[in-house]
Amino acid sequence: MKLRFEQLPGGVVAAEGFRTGGVFCDIKRLGTGKGSNKGPKRDLAMLVSDVPGSVAGMFTTNQVCAAPVKVCVARVAKGVAQAVVINSGNANACTGRQGMKDALEMTRLAEKALGIGDGLCLVGSTGRIGVELPMKEVRSGIAAAARILGSTPEHADQAAEAIMTSDSRPKQVAIQFRLGKRVVRLGGMCKGAGMIQPGMSANGARPAALPSGLHATMLAFLTTDAAVESRALQAALREAVALSFNRITVDGDMSTNDTVLLMANGRSGAPKIGTRSPEFRKFQEAVTQVCLELAKMIVRDGEGVHRVVTVRVSGARSVAEADAAARAVGNSALVKTSWHGGDPNWGRIMDALGYSPATVSEDRVDIGYSAPGSRTILWSLKRGQPTRATFRSLCAAVAPKEFDLHIRLNLGKGAAILYAGDLTEAYVDFNKGDVTDPTTLGG
Amino acid sequence: MKLRFEQLPGGVVAAEGFRTGGVFCDIKRLGTGKGSNKGPKRDLAMLVSDVPGSVAGMFTTNQVCAAPVKVCVARVAKGVAQAVVINSGNANACTGRQGMKDALEMTRLAEKALGIGDGLCLVGSTGRIGVELPMKEVRSGIAAAARILGSTPEHADQAAEAIMTSDSRPKQVAIQFRLGKRVVRLGGMCKGAGMIQPGMSANGARPAALPSGLHATMLAFLTTDAAVESRALQAALREAVALSFNRITVDGDMSTNDTVLLMANGRSGAPKIGTRSPEFRKFQEAVTQVCLELAKMIVRDGEGVHRVVTVRVSGARSVAEADAAARAVGNSALVKTSWHGGDPNWGRIMDALGYSPATVSEDRVDIGYSAPGSRTILWSLKRGQPTRATFRSLCAAVAPKEFDLHIRLNLGKGAAILYAGDLTEAYVDFNKGDVTDPTTLGG
Repeated sequence: MKLRFEQLPGGVVAAEGFRTGGVFCDIKRLGTGKGSNKGPKRDLAMLVSDVPGSVAGMFTTNQVCAAPVKVCVARVAKGVAQAVVINSGNANACTGRQGMKDALEMTRLAEKALGIGDGLCLVGSTGRIGVELPMKEVRSGIAAAARILGSTPEHADQAAEAIMTSDSRPKQVAIQFRLGKRVVRLGGMCKGAGMIQPGMSANGARPAALPSGLHATMLAFLTTDAAVESRALQAALREAVALSFNRITVDGDMSTNDTVLLMANGRSGAPKIGTRSPEFRKFQEAVTQVCLELAKMIVRDGEGVHRVVTVRVSGARSVAEADAAARAVGNSALVKTSWHGGDPNWGRIMDALGYSPATVSEDRVDIGYSAPGSRTILWSLKRGQPTRATFRSLCAAVAPKEFDLHIRLNLGKGAAILYAGDLTEAYVDFNKGDVTDPTTLGG
Repeated sequence: MKLRFEQLPGGVVAAEGFRTGGVFCDIKRLGTGKGSNKGPKRDLAMLVSDVPGSVAGMFTTNQVCAAPVKVCVARVAKGVAQAVVINSGNANACTGRQGMKDALEMTRLAEKALGIGDGLCLVGSTGRIGVELPMKEVRSGIAAAARILGSTPEHADQAAEAIMTSDSRPKQVAIQFRLGKRVVRLGGMCKGAGMIQPGMSANGARPAALPSGLHATMLAFLTTDAAVESRALQAALREAVALSFNRITVDGDMSTNDTVLLMANGRSGAPKIGTRSPEFRKFQEAVTQVCLELAKMIVRDGEGVHRVVTVRVSGARSVAEADAAARAVGNSALVKTSWHGGDPNWGRIMDALGYSPATVSEDRVDIGYSAPGSRTILWSLKRGQPTRATFRSLCAAVAPKEFDLHIRLNLGKGAAILYAGDLTEAYVDFNKGDVTDPTTLGG
């Protein structure tokens, strides 16, 4: 996936007028009664704009939704924000009233430490579910983070590290592009490796028809110095998330905490754009590109993931059916283990298609493999009949770390893409944890 | 789970008037171009009644449905059968017209070898999908099996072995009970270890509302010497499968070949019963008991399964929502790996409940653990709040090889049970196979 925009260093502080930083405040220690086995890794980040700006957000549609998500849904609805405080190591989910008090206290402490207005700070949390936040550590973390904020790529690295849980590496991207006569910048960071199949909506409300699949914690924070009306910002983010974060799966589990936030502070000096501005479409495309780049980083760094497969379904009776077919394939334990084994196993793919909610006619189905983004497809099945492709050649097609799986149902015009990881022993080993050392137990 | 009926040896030949047997005819050799790495294991079984009898069947609702399933659906609809021929090592699925020809040829050859009427033999297949049957081997297997049929427990063992694929052991049960003034016998054998979450219906048609979950090859063959009208037999089997095979999951994948057949030959001499007979309910209960016993054997012997968890959901707004909640929990990769790790992790359970299609209110949910069937429940969560149960005590509750997970949604009266396996490294290792040795590649 090549960005059609110029890349920049600096992640969330590539845009003008943002400062960030991350510190270690030992959030896992009190939550578990034990020191973290992972050493003193940063676990609290802050991100602040010099001035209040417009804000947009997309949130988990899980009915069991963490306190920080509830706080964000309410505040993003107002359309204005200036900062966000984020901790890893504890999801502040299933923590009842105390959880809401703690999430709100985090925002108040951050607002005070940053000297910004009441209600202008948002909050994100990720980590184990059902454990109350160690507020003593959180308070000292917020105070410490507020003292070290800055706008260098090193500051962005600190923040991107601080929001990591099982991630093996920080995930950041930033681009710049011309919007009208001005150059604007758009950057972001994200985290997520397991409990990944987001299904987010603007207010956390479930759509009438739920996506057929299930859905992990992923957090993403985006910043831009473009000036964008909050409704236009929300429209751009909704479209971008639909085409990126909501199109990935690691393990099919949707988290209680999935959150994507986008802040626009207008510091580029470019004129404010709305949904009807001629520049809106380009801005939306930029947001989509950044979200897609970040979303793919999540799958590539998914827990135990060895191979990333782009499942491309077309010819379904509807987009919803294409999506359902892609999710059945991308979340099938048997298909995912076959990918891990380098086995093209189209029989398991047919099986998953057959039990998916999508309409499938066995003698219409085409299944093939290609290099990522390539149109040179090696078909294993055409109209339900095995082709002459040899087992050896099919194995070669699915041997690379990344490949595209093409499924044509040949029943209609519905199409969908899903970016999916394989299922490996490493995933199981990581997630079974070690009950004798609760710091190894994941969210 | 204790049978309330007297157990007998002999599996499918415990009932009067049935003969069975299993042979090795090397079905995997030609399918893969290589010898089987598993040695000369039996791979073809036959089962025949001395006289034609009534028959009932339940079949996969997978839209991609194997040729032998199609043959059975058509023949069971007539209500009469006398024999069944079954092979392992090849599913005869996704094999197009040749597959249908081969499935029909298997029945014709068996009918001829057994000297029974046209159309009275059923057929079952299990193994890799998308490979044509090696008919030369199958033909010699049918001829050989027909010569060695008998009614001893050893014959039953041969048949139960011959239908195994990744199963580590044969699965059989038989009971006897009084029906009116006569003693009748009911027995069965089954296979299944991976691609297990059956969702079967009487004719393979999908219900208007699909079960929320997905669904592996399991085959089960039951015999009784009771005399039962075919409609009553079908009613009894439908109810029994709904409460047994359709309530298990190993990996959430529903197979193209799932089949349960029940033949009743009347050789006990007991009077024929219909749905209105006073004895019908007892007969139905007996079928349910046998199916449930066999279904649990499948989960316990599931690929890589170390722990079996009975997920008991109650208080859902409807039975369908209870079922959806149980399947979300029982198929969650994160919940299943935590079971493997001996981690009570109720946070992951809450997460799965929250993304399930069932309505869940976080502050109403109770989650607890008990020994199988016990009413002494250790609650980890009551009305969404952690109880005082210690982490150590919760770990002890989920340490045994089998335990019950109690989930009360406290929103209504819907209840459902799901028998689920954990997810282990052994599952992944087994199913990734080794592409350099295609005989290791599963269905």
